[in-house]
Amino acid sequence: MKILIVGGNGTIGSKVSSHLSKKHELIIATRNSGDVNLDMADKPSIKAAFEKIGTVDAVVCTAGDAKWANFNELTEDDFYIGIKSKLMGQVNLVRIGKDYMNPGGSFTLSTGILADHPVRMTTSAAMVNGAIHSFVKAVALELENNIRINVVSSGLVEDAVAHYGAYFPGHNPIPMGKVVNGFVKSVEGAGTGEIIRMYDNG
Amino acid sequence: MKILIVGGNGTIGSKVSSHLSKKHELIIATRNSGDVNLDMADKPSIKAAFEKIGTVDAVVCTAGDAKWANFNELTEDDFYIGIKSKLMGQVNLVRIGKDYMNPGGSFTLSTGILADHPVRMTTSAAMVNGAIHSFVKAVALELENNIRINVVSSGLVEDAVAHYGAYFPGHNPIPMGKVVNGFVKSVEGAGTGEIIRMYDNG
Repeated sequence: MKILIVGGNGTIGSKVSSHLSKKHELIIATRNSGDVNLDMADKPSIKAAFEKIGTVDAVVCTAGDAKWANFNELTEDDFYIGIKSKLMGQVNLVRIGKDYMNPGGSFTLSTGILADHPVRMTTSAAMVNGAIHSFVKAVALELENNIRINVVSSGLVEDAVAHYGAYFPGHNPIPMGKVVNGFVKSVEGAGTGEIIRMYDNG
Repeated sequence: MKILIVGGNGTIGSKVSSHLSKKHELIIATRNSGDVNLDMADKPSIKAAFEKIGTVDAVVCTAGDAKWANFNELTEDDFYIGIKSKLMGQVNLVRIGKDYMNPGGSFTLSTGILADHPVRMTTSAAMVNGAIHSFVKAVALELENNIRINVVSSGLVEDAVAHYGAYFPGHNPIPMGKVVNGFVKSVEGAGTGEIIRMYDNG
């Protein structure tokens, strides 16, 4: 398969890319250091990336930002960081990308455990994750040409414990291999409209 | 209790208002025909409404728009109708309203079955509903002064079957009284961070 991976150089994206590259042709999209440039929050850059790439068999997104801060400190503009990037960035990947997707292809979006089990400082991040879950279930009802869509919701991965573990008290970190398998399941499996939850607890 | 009901003249809001008015002092906010004017999509109007009303013991929101249309027809601007009104309108009600909320008071937001069980044409509406579910769980961790927050997620109510039943094939309509009880549970009960799902099936 010819697979576009948006955010293919990130903590999770790089491991997903490394795994999928064994069997598939990958195109890595990042803001400014991949095979192609793509800024999630900038709709024209999404369109330009697909124009450059042409049709694909799968799109995997492991990118998208949202601001973490105490609710009392989050401004309305802060909420719009996540809305424009992690939320509408992923929605626009599907809106635009469906016209470049080969029949039977798939989208795989990314969220996290916060959608179901938020922690402090995540009113914005949890919100956009929950939004993507419902979007995926809804859009799966309407995508044409047997195009599938799923989302991988990752728990705190072992690789991120050093940097982020303190924000997730009591969470059992999960091996990166399990998260990577979530993406493999979505790309190579047959399911659609699935929220692939990769974590043991909340 | 002194309760602000935003959208208190709508299909569900009018029944919730009618019920709560038996025991509580209500202030109905609508775009232009209530006790006070409040436009969900306009942050300054939310602030102005609270300035006029002063402190309250509960805020109930049964308002907020989102555009229904086929995914292929929804523009990015169409998605932002729901984001600005139903999503950030409710977030802003909490962001601004918490400063006018008496200790121990409560917010009750509104969503619907689409968050969990979308139907055709609801990629935008489902998305904002799912966003509010995760937001409520996250913000409940951070609200101070024992302020609570819950969301009532309503199924297709019997009162709406004539107008909307065709969009919900096979859904069992639920009595309005059950939905009203969801709001009573949130306002008069002790729970917080709850998604109060008022429907039998998907």
